[in-house]
Order: sequence, then C-alpha cells, then structure tokens
Amino acid sequence: MYTLKSSQATINQAISGLVFNSEPKELYDPIRYILSLEGKRLRPSLVLMACNLFSDNVEDAVYPAIGLEIFHNFTLLHDDIMDKATVRRNNPTVHARWNENIAILSGDVMSILAYEYISKCRPGVLLDVTGIFTQTALQVCEGQQYDMNFEKAKRVSLEGYLKMIELKTSVLIASCLKIGSIIGGATTKDADLMYDFGKNLGLAFQLQDDVLDVYGDPKIFGKETGGDIVANKKTFLLIKAFELADGAIFENLQHQIERKHFDPKDKIKAVKAIYDELGVRDQADDLVKSFYQKAFRNLDKVSAEKSRKSELIKLAEGLMKREN
Amino acid sequence: MYTLKSSQATINQAISGLVFNSEPKELYDPIRYILSLEGKRLRPSLVLMACNLFSDNVEDAVYPAIGLEIFHNFTLLHDDIMDKATVRRNNPTVHARWNENIAILSGDVMSILAYEYISKCRPGVLLDVTGIFTQTALQVCEGQQYDMNFEKAKRVSLEGYLKMIELKTSVLIASCLKIGSIIGGATTKDADLMYDFGKNLGLAFQLQDDVLDVYGDPKIFGKETGGDIVANKKTFLLIKAFELADGAIFENLQHQIERKHFDPKDKIKAVKAIYDELGVRDQADDLVKSFYQKAFRNLDKVSAEKSRKSELIKLAEGLMKREN
Repeated sequence: MYTLKSSQATINQAISGLVFNSEPKELYDPIRYILSLEGKRLRPSLVLMACNLFSDNVEDAVYPAIGLEIFHNFTLLHDDIMDKATVRRNNPTVHARWNENIAILSGDVMSILAYEYISKCRPGVLLDVTGIFTQTALQVCEGQQYDMNFEKAKRVSLEGYLKMIELKTSVLIASCLKIGSIIGGATTKDADLMYDFGKNLGLAFQLQDDVLDVYGDPKIFGKETGGDIVANKKTFLLIKAFELADGAIFENLQHQIERKHFDPKDKIKAVKAIYDELGVRDQADDLVKSFYQKAFRNLDKVSAEKSRKSELIKLAEGLMKREN
Repeated sequence: MYTLKSSQATINQAISGLVFNSEPKELYDPIRYILSLEGKRLRPSLVLMACNLFSDNVEDAVYPAIGLEIFHNFTLLHDDIMDKATVRRNNPTVHARWNENIAILSGDVMSILAYEYISKCRPGVLLDVTGIFTQTALQVCEGQQYDMNFEKAKRVSLEGYLKMIELKTSVLIASCLKIGSIIGGATTKDADLMYDFGKNLGLAFQLQDDVLDVYGDPKIFGKETGGDIVANKKTFLLIKAFELADGAIFENLQHQIERKHFDPKDKIKAVKAIYDELGVRDQADDLVKSFYQKAFRNLDKVSAEKSRKSELIKLAEGLMKREN
C-alpha cells in the first residue's frame, strides 16, 4: 500500500522529472523554484493514497496529483504577493526574489499547467475530475478573498471564520481525496465520503495551525510563536476570546488589539494570559478533536476493505498529533 | 451566415446572461465589470464564424467562445496591473477602481472560469479544444513576459519583436479560429489552415496598431496619437528605424530616446520626422499587407464552400481598412 512517505517520494520524483519550456526563463525559473521547495506534498500524496484505497494501479493518478500540487503552489505564490509575505518554506517568496510582475505572470502560467496536468487522466473520468477541480479552484479563491476581507473587518463571526477556512484550505484537501478516489474507481457514494473525510481533516488541520501558532514549541514549530497575536490575526482563538470576554477582560483584550507601540513579547504574553483565563485553547482543542472524529467516521463508512484504510488512518492520526 | 455583427450580438447576449456566484462580491463584481465593458468581442466572434464555416449549428460553439473571451479579459486584467495602466476601454481598470489584490484574485477566478466555459463543448472534441487552449494560454503568458523584458532591454531585434506579438496577440486569434473550426467539424487540415489564417491576421492587426498609434487620426483612433513614441515603446517602427538609421539620423534618434525632460508634442514631431525620413511607415504598411495576403491565401485553401467564406473575408477586409 502507498504510505504517506512512499507517496511523497513518488510525487517528488515525478515533479523533478517535469519538463517545462525553458524560455522566457523569467517565467519558468520561478515555477521550477517554487516546486523545488518541496514542502509536505500533502495534497498530491492524498490523491495517490485515495486512489490506492480503491485500486492497485496508482499510475493513473500521478499527473492529476501533480496538477493539484501545482495549483496549490500557484495559490501560495499569488497569496504571498497579496499578503506581502517575503518568506515561504524558509526561502524568499517569488515576488521577493524576482518581482511582483513576474510573480503574477508565473502564477498565471501555473494555473494553466495545473489544468493541463489534472486533465491527464482517463477519458472516462475527465469530466468528473475537471468539474470537481473547477468548483474547488473557485472556492479556494473565494476563501482567499474572505480572508482578505476579514483582515480589514473589525469583528468576524466564528461561523464566517469556519466558512473561510473551509473554502481556503479544506475543500482542496477534500477534492484531492475525492479526485484520487474517482480515478481509483470509487462509487459516487464512496467518493463523496472521501470528500467529507478530507473536509473535516482540513478543518481540523487549519484550526490546529491557529493553536500551534500560539502554543507550539518554537524548536519543533520551526518559527517563533505568537505571530498571529502580534498581527491581530482573527484566528479561532481571538474570535472565540472576543465572544467569551466581558467586563475587564474584554477591555484588556480590546486594549491589546489597539496598541500601536509595543514589545511583541509583552503583547504575546498578555493575550496568551487572556486566552488561558477564558479557556479558548481547550475550546479549540475540543473542536479540532471533533473534526478529526467526524473525519474518522467518514472514512469508516467508505466501503473499501479495512486493511486498505490503514495508511490513511495513520496519516490522519499523525496529523492529529503534529506539532508543526 | 453569421456576420461579425450577429456574432457580436450573440456573444453579448450570452455574456449578459451569465450567472456567477454573488459572494464574495469583491471577487465577482470586477469580473462582471470587465466583461460588461464589451469591447469588440473579436475573439469569440471569430470562434462562431469559424464554426459556421463548417456547420449550421453554431450553438455548440457559444460557451467555448465565451470561455475564450473570458480568458482574453483575464489577460487584460492582469496585464493592466503589470503595466500600471489606469484606463481600459475608456473606463478605470480593475486595480484602479478596486485594488491590486482584488485585481490579481478576480483575474485568477477568470482564468478558472475560462477553462470551465471552454470545456463546455461536445465530448468528442473536448481533448482537442482544451489541448489547443492550454498551449495557447501558455504562449500568451510567454508573450507578455517577452513584452516586459523588451521594455527593459536596450535594443530588441525585429525577429524577437515579431515573435513577441505572435505569442502575445496572434496565437489567441489563431486558436479562436481553430477551436471554432474543430467544433464545427472541420478536418485537421482545414483547422490548421484556419489557425494560420488567424495567426497572419493577428500579426497584421498588431502591426497596424503600431502604425495607428503614430499615424492614426485622433478623432477616429479614439485617443491621442504618439503615446508609443513618448514612452519609447519598442514598436516595429522604432525597431526598424534603429535598424535603418546611421550617422546624424541615428544620433538624433538616440538623443530623442534618451531625453529626460521634453514636451511630448516636440518629441512626437521629431521622431515622426525621423520615421518619415527613413520610410519606416511604408515598410510597416508593406509588412501589414503581406500578412493580410498570407491570411487570405490560407483562407482560400480551406475546403469549405466559397460562399460560406464571404463573412470572414469581409471581416478581414474590414480589419485591413480599420482606422482605430
């Protein structure tokens, strides 16, 4: 069976073998660059593992998996321009290393390449696969727009936040699992269950990110914690804290958010103290757990043999315990 | 038979009937906006007219035609960000009216929508149509990158310039004609001839733009002439002038290009005088004519009935005589 590790290896090998046009190099060098930063290759690995749940022939799923990884990297590339982020996976972002115009245009090329590779699947499933992908790609863009809107919004509802992370993160993970399943020959019912499995997995994953950004071990997390607090990012923790706080705690939280000049360490300490007092971390952990439980129930209902599910269960359990 | 006018009307009606998601409005309002600016609808009209050359059922070509128009507008939207252009079709560009992030993201959505609509064709031609489109979309991006490279380059070769306008403009016009032909049931040979017809038409069209920008009648052209001269844009005229100039004329041209402070009218007059002295306008006109002649020869070889070609001939003749 394909494990996360063997899937990642298959994907990395396939990506390193991709041949793009060589000219103009300003257009294709950034694409080679961002794809060489590797990352977790979680999404394409999920495509292969989902396919493998229903079929021993995973070959058919490799190019569509790569297409989905290219799409994911395209969204990171353009998001980094919009967020003015200068570092991605410990390396300069494309617009920081080249410039903004090159980042826009090489991203555009990646969105075309994504379609090209996703379409390299059996003709019998082509319409299904591209239909799911198109729907998902639109949703991911919608999620990014909500994310940008929320940055400027004074207050965001928990419901709105969950919808945003569902669109921005979960639906792509869900679609990777659904597309892999379809290529593997799953029934519509099983493919839909795999989608739900991925959606719940993705929601849990993203909420964990919120928790890790505040409570992670910097040595394992790979960067300083508290970045979201310093930036007043409207994460689950902050939104929930505002929902629960009243009186002096509310005033204090409001004050922390409005501070213009501050030592980041002080602000992180103060906001963390509020979070602890309100117990928002426990609430986040509970919600993460409930999404994982939902995910496991979805996977359990899939009609594939139990033994074939073991690697996906291991992967989900690994994500549950992740510390970075 | 479908005329340019009836094709434009069909396209405008179909576009006004498109229903996009309504939320988030920051994402979909710019798309509705740019598509409502109308423009010439040349590309989708060519899809319908090419289809009509081979078939009386043009219905099948409407959605793919719209997809190609959405793609064209997507490239305009992103190009306008890169070029920092604030006006398009006498209206504010998307990034000027909203902001750059919204322009990047709504453009990304348009590239996805383009694929969605282009894929709405008969299953029997789907792989052909999307394959041509993918290839073309990559080439258009390559053309834009060369265009940006040329802006910073000290000198550009005529060969490089012609390659750039072929990629940036001609291949999309060529593909519209080829895709329409394929949907209409053309043979591979005829579809390829239609591609060549479009490529030569597009090259002539773009070179005419260079001439009109300098020699057009401002009242008919719709904007002040000489913009390319003021901006030192490396058009056919400037590149050819540098190729032909020597001695005092070369020195003068070089001086005009390097001037930092100048009255635009003076610079336009001076450069125009050099162009006239070197006869570069005639050279451009000759080249335009030769591309049109090639285009007509391509169309002539297409095996459709002669009477069915009359509207495309009329359209090409109209473009030949265009003054804006």
